[in-house]
Amino acid sequence: MASLIRKRINKKITKALFDFSLIEPHDKILVAVSGGKDSTTLLLELAARYGRWQVPFEMEAIYIQSDFASGTPKDFLQTIADKFPFPFHFLDIAVAKRVKEGFKLNCYWCSTQRRVELLEFATSRGFNKIALGHHLDDIIETLLMNMLYKGEFSGMPPRVPYEKYPVSIIRPLCYCEEEEIVKYIRETEFAQFTCTCEFARESRRKTIRREIEHLTQGSSTLKQNLFKSMRNIKMDYL
Amino acid sequence: MASLIRKRINKKITKALFDFSLIEPHDKILVAVSGGKDSTTLLLELAARYGRWQVPFEMEAIYIQSDFASGTPKDFLQTIADKFPFPFHFLDIAVAKRVKEGFKLNCYWCSTQRRVELLEFATSRGFNKIALGHHLDDIIETLLMNMLYKGEFSGMPPRVPYEKYPVSIIRPLCYCEEEEIVKYIRETEFAQFTCTCEFARESRRKTIRREIEHLTQGSSTLKQNLFKSMRNIKMDYL
Repeated sequence: MASLIRKRINKKITKALFDFSLIEPHDKILVAVSGGKDSTTLLLELAARYGRWQVPFEMEAIYIQSDFASGTPKDFLQTIADKFPFPFHFLDIAVAKRVKEGFKLNCYWCSTQRRVELLEFATSRGFNKIALGHHLDDIIETLLMNMLYKGEFSGMPPRVPYEKYPVSIIRPLCYCEEEEIVKYIRETEFAQFTCTCEFARESRRKTIRREIEHLTQGSSTLKQNLFKSMRNIKMDYL
Repeated sequence: MASLIRKRINKKITKALFDFSLIEPHDKILVAVSGGKDSTTLLLELAARYGRWQVPFEMEAIYIQSDFASGTPKDFLQTIADKFPFPFHFLDIAVAKRVKEGFKLNCYWCSTQRRVELLEFATSRGFNKIALGHHLDDIIETLLMNMLYKGEFSGMPPRVPYEKYPVSIIRPLCYCEEEEIVKYIRETEFAQFTCTCEFARESRRKTIRREIEHLTQGSSTLKQNLFKSMRNIKMDYL
């Protein structure tokens, strides 16, 4: 029998899939996996719907290993890969040597490199959607960071098409809080891994995360409200 | 010679007047005065432009005294009124007796009553604009409160027309921070008064004020960015 937290995550993902039409008939979805708790949750939940969802869709998973950070042990990822009937790709990319002399590697640069590789892989193989593991906390952090540091009301949409590529990003975990994902993953056999990069998250994001905890007193309702405000814009009152 | 803080406030108000076209030729502006630092600053700054601004406009001031809170001593307000060549109206309204049995008076209810009186006074006398003393901190507090508690991206616009009345609200202090207004008022002869109502601000607003200080570390740039985000909405990234 599914535990409460599994039911909860399942329900939130189903709601996101419906609310934002994240899966449409005959979508070919590439799930970006890091070995961390978020994308592992995403993979498990999409895999559970694979072949039995109300609309038929194809899915494959990809793990991009860069030479910058040591990352998740490949045998762990192989264990995950072996569990599923769909293809699981391992892509090795050399990021470090791409850095121009005098420049330092950083999170932003590394993630941009990985993103480009991901997009090229997806489009060259006919995927029309890329599923990413960003959750509610990631999204409202980005929203507040963009407001505070860029003076811009923008975030990470649950579904957004790329302008330059014939592919859309989807974020099925957009209603799930990180705390819920932590609990969820603890109940699976993949509990031992959480984060893949020893350089971890940027410090600004860490700060904003603490600020949001402070601001919302950890209240789920208030966090959901921040998320909701992104699609509830009163132009006459701005 | 004008002090630095007077120059600064003056410049910010001029910028707001231009950026949002707050004063247009032959506007008839009613300035809502409470006797507090914000509306006194607003009154002083608009009065300084009266008769010498690049576009001709009319202005009058109004103080609405309710029987709910004792408010600002009338002789203090009379001192202010006597300084200016334009009419200064004193309106007494009985708020307490309007409360239905079983209901308690509160800030929201009282301010709604005063707002209705203000609107009726303005429209019955042909004013097309009402100037309010809300500053940057008020505005970003409202923005974050609406996001957090209503799940809505909305705030207090620098200029907003009423739907039901032929009048617009303008907020010329929208770029001014409260700290600046405090410094400004200290340099005037009106330093002794700050707040009019002993019931003070709602506690939720007080909380959010502390949160914003925490969030922005008191940085003016970050506060201005929050304000800017209200008019810099990236619909494709929400």
